[in-house]
Amino acid sequence: MNAKKVSESYTVMTQMVLPNDTNGLYNLRGGKSLHWMDLATAIVAQKHSGRVAVTASVDNVSFKHPIKVGDVVTIQAKITRAFRSSMEVKAEVWAENIPNRRKVKSNEAYFTFVALNDLGEPEIVPAVIAETEQEKEDHDRALRRRDLRLILAGKKQPGDSEELKKLFA
Amino acid sequence: MNAKKVSESYTVMTQMVLPNDTNGLYNLRGGKSLHWMDLATAIVAQKHSGRVAVTASVDNVSFKHPIKVGDVVTIQAKITRAFRSSMEVKAEVWAENIPNRRKVKSNEAYFTFVALNDLGEPEIVPAVIAETEQEKEDHDRALRRRDLRLILAGKKQPGDSEELKKLFA
Amino acid sequence: MNAKKVSESYTVMTQMVLPNDTNGLYNLRGGKSLHWMDLATAIVAQKHSGRVAVTASVDNVSFKHPIKVGDVVTIQAKITRAFRSSMEVKAEVWAENIPNRRKVKSNEAYFTFVALNDLGEPEIVPAVIAETEQEKEDHDRALRRRDLRLILAGKKQPGDSEELKKLFA
Amino acid sequence: MNAKKVSESYTVMTQMVLPNDTNGLYNLRGGKSLHWMDLATAIVAQKHSGRVAVTASVDNVSFKHPIKVGDVVTIQAKITRAFRSSMEVKAEVWAENIPNRRKVKSNEAYFTFVALNDLGEPEIVPAVIAETEQEKEDHDRALRRRDLRLILAGKKQPGDSEELKKLFA
Amino acid sequence: MNAKKVSESYTVMTQMVLPNDTNGLYNLRGGKSLHWMDLATAIVAQKHSGRVAVTASVDNVSFKHPIKVGDVVTIQAKITRAFRSSMEVKAEVWAENIPNRRKVKSNEAYFTFVALNDLGEPEIVPAVIAETEQEKEDHDRALRRRDLRLILAGKKQPGDSEELKKLFA
Amino acid sequence: MNAKKVSESYTVMTQMVLPNDTNGLYNLRGGKSLHWMDLATAIVAQKHSGRVAVTASVDNVSFKHPIKVGDVVTIQAKITRAFRSSMEVKAEVWAENIPNRRKVKSNEAYFTFVALNDLGEPEIVPAVIAETEQEKEDHDRALRRRDLRLILAGKKQPGDSEELKKLFA
Repeated sequence: MNAKKVSESYTVMTQMVLPNDTNGLYNLRGGKSLHWMDLATAIVAQKHSGRVAVTASVDNVSFKHPIKVGDVVTIQAKITRAFRSSMEVKAEVWAENIPNRRKVKSNEAYFTFVALNDLGEPEIVPAVIAETEQEKEDHDRALRRRDLRLILAGKKQPGDSEELKKLFA
Repeated sequence: MNAKKVSESYTVMTQMVLPNDTNGLYNLRGGKSLHWMDLATAIVAQKHSGRVAVTASVDNVSFKHPIKVGDVVTIQAKITRAFRSSMEVKAEVWAENIPNRRKVKSNEAYFTFVALNDLGEPEIVPAVIAETEQEKEDHDRALRRRDLRLILAGKKQPGDSEELKKLFA
Repeated sequence: MNAKKVSESYTVMTQMVLPNDTNGLYNLRGGKSLHWMDLATAIVAQKHSGRVAVTASVDNVSFKHPIKVGDVVTIQAKITRAFRSSMEVKAEVWAENIPNRRKVKSNEAYFTFVALNDLGEPEIVPAVIAETEQEKEDHDRALRRRDLRLILAGKKQPGDSEELKKLFA
Repeated sequence: MNAKKVSESYTVMTQMVLPNDTNGLYNLRGGKSLHWMDLATAIVAQKHSGRVAVTASVDNVSFKHPIKVGDVVTIQAKITRAFRSSMEVKAEVWAENIPNRRKVKSNEAYFTFVALNDLGEPEIVPAVIAETEQEKEDHDRALRRRDLRLILAGKKQPGDSEELKKLFA
Repeated sequence: MNAKKVSESYTVMTQMVLPNDTNGLYNLRGGKSLHWMDLATAIVAQKHSGRVAVTASVDNVSFKHPIKVGDVVTIQAKITRAFRSSMEVKAEVWAENIPNRRKVKSNEAYFTFVALNDLGEPEIVPAVIAETEQEKEDHDRALRRRDLRLILAGKKQPGDSEELKKLFA
Repeated sequence: MNAKKVSESYTVMTQMVLPNDTNGLYNLRGGKSLHWMDLATAIVAQKHSGRVAVTASVDNVSFKHPIKVGDVVTIQAKITRAFRSSMEVKAEVWAENIPNRRKVKSNEAYFTFVALNDLGEPEIVPAVIAETEQEKEDHDRALRRRDLRLILAGKKQPGDSEELKKLFA
């Protein structure tokens, strides 16, 4: 199975914030934003693996800037690293207000997916070739995020993570 | 401002998984599940604060069991702790298959909300009165989750968290 | 087939009223409310029978209080009585306004469902065990509602209903 | 205020049954059908009154024939009678299967609406001119349905209804 | 295969413009209007052919009058002509404002469909019997529209169309 | 007002085809596809003009390849030319099947928009700077498409179009 470049599965999703997507202050609901991020990152995982990919987890997400009704939301999603049958995909969410053209990064998140075959069993996925500096950094830091994920899911002991010991020492 | 009991804002949401909520294997999408959890926990935050509440963050979520089309999803949401103008709300997601009546806990998540007044400014919220053993444990552990959230958002140094040092020491 | 308690299939559904659910005065449409009641009561019928349950009828429904956009709607649904392959389920709809926390009962309705097997044929369902005073009253009065339903559907003559004669004599 | 003919506000709505409108057997949900009937009859009430019209009640509805995914649903809605500020509107639901072209009447229902002015207060509506034999019968029988509605809502005593005494005597 | 009258597949669709169907000025989006026209004309094509019908093309559409949120949209769709396995269907879109009862024709469009059998292959469809003057004119002019469609799709040379030469000579 | 480059408002939208977006053969409906194209091109027009932009027309669209449920649809939208207060935007629709990774161009279309100010009046928009060969060709051919649009809308005589005379002579 040949490794694939990050750029081969890179996906951009654009959405316009409609009234039903908002809360009582006409700001985009966090949950709707997560829904769109999940769709965009699932498409990346499916393009990379050539398989149906199901969401295994999403890391901590902070919503920093309110996004208003009528704003244009752009989600840039790219794979960072593959682990046997799972893939980590990063989503960056940008909001652009028209007419003032102010474009701000609202938040980012890391989703992980598992590739499944037609029987619903996990399948090995291609490795990821990181090319740019940013892609390489995302690829390296994926190990640390994975350790934290395993610890939070109770599948690894905090003391067993060399990556996180550096952080908390 | 009088403190309020956890039970006063406790909310149960029930959803049936429809075809459009699923992926290529007819399993509920993670993103749709997050959307419902955000709605249920936002209702809790609004009931507790008596204000519009906007999503500030969601902690790491793991999706453990696939939920099938036609399954009944129950989301139990309750507040764990309040911090000045923010509130942490826990969502537990259960999936029940009919006809076999197997009911499994699919996943749980912690959402945080900020209460806003009519001008869109943060407002102080009532404290939380934890009554049951489970509520008290959720209330105590909220500090540790908050520290991790602040560290992951880059607002606190790992070394400054007494709560997390215990974990990684 | 063992009888089941009312509490075993009791279901609570919570919804937030979004802009698209409303009419020109930003009140929840009656039809959307009926749609939610049908979903909640269908879940009860499916839990009680362990089968797919299809709506056979809905009794007269009055909409007493307007429900505004942003209000939280809670639907409490419980089975009242079973008749061979059909079940009567009661839905009570509550609306809660945030921030003023006023919670009013908007309306109630009785839906009947038929349990179907995989061939789409009616299947016998478990009897209902009513425990509380309210459950017992709902169980007893189900006969009268059933007679009225049969008369309105032209399947029974008014003079043949002992239950309704008492009412109109 | 000039009386208006039934034909002036007559409305036909056509819908195609999509997967999300169905239950586990791919039949149209009763609640979705009620939602469409409410929309079609509300349009009739708004055309007749020239006002926003809110649903006051729906009479007993029986669902007689299952409607399948892909079927074409036609709802014919026409006003039967006006009472000061309220209007009764009849909906007939037809389902047509393609390719076999079998068209069956699935069910019918009576919805009542109240016309509201811009302050949300009830407003007097034009009287209804029934022209055809069917329209005249619908107009006459509206009194009986109204009595039953008032009795079921607890606003009238069964013994006070001359219309219903005839039925149950 | 017997020819069928235009009136046999004539379809009327009514929709109310909801907030999510509009743009930043609370006018109905052109794309939503096209979506509804496609549904209404597809139903006509399916009724005429007794087959699943898929959209092959839509001719140039101009949106002349803005349609506001709350307006009632009526789409009248009728077949104009059949060509072996394809059908041309005309949609006329009317918008009615309540309370002022002004009803204007917003736009019209011609959609073409191909009838498919269960294997997804094109199937011959019945000829169209045009009865009224308007139907006959729509039937005759269908040839000219078809030529333009073929030229715009690059399947016919402009010089080969006798119909269009008359227009541009 | 400064002219703007095509690339400044270039927009990519990605959608996954869900069951409710399809017809009886599980192919994407043409109308849903038009709805997405309209959203993507409206975003381009709003970015270019910094105004709310309403759809004025869509040119003839042919649907060449069926798109299946589960396919990933990518819409690339870019402005071709501006005329005082109107803008022509081109949409190219690509469909990608996973797992076989076959990506085909399904169709393309030209939408025109009018920029409106807060009073709903047309506003002058910036000119378009075409940079690549493709952009320049799209810019030049826009005149011919505009003539055809005006003729089809009855606002110009066929004989008055120098652009189209070349085509049909």
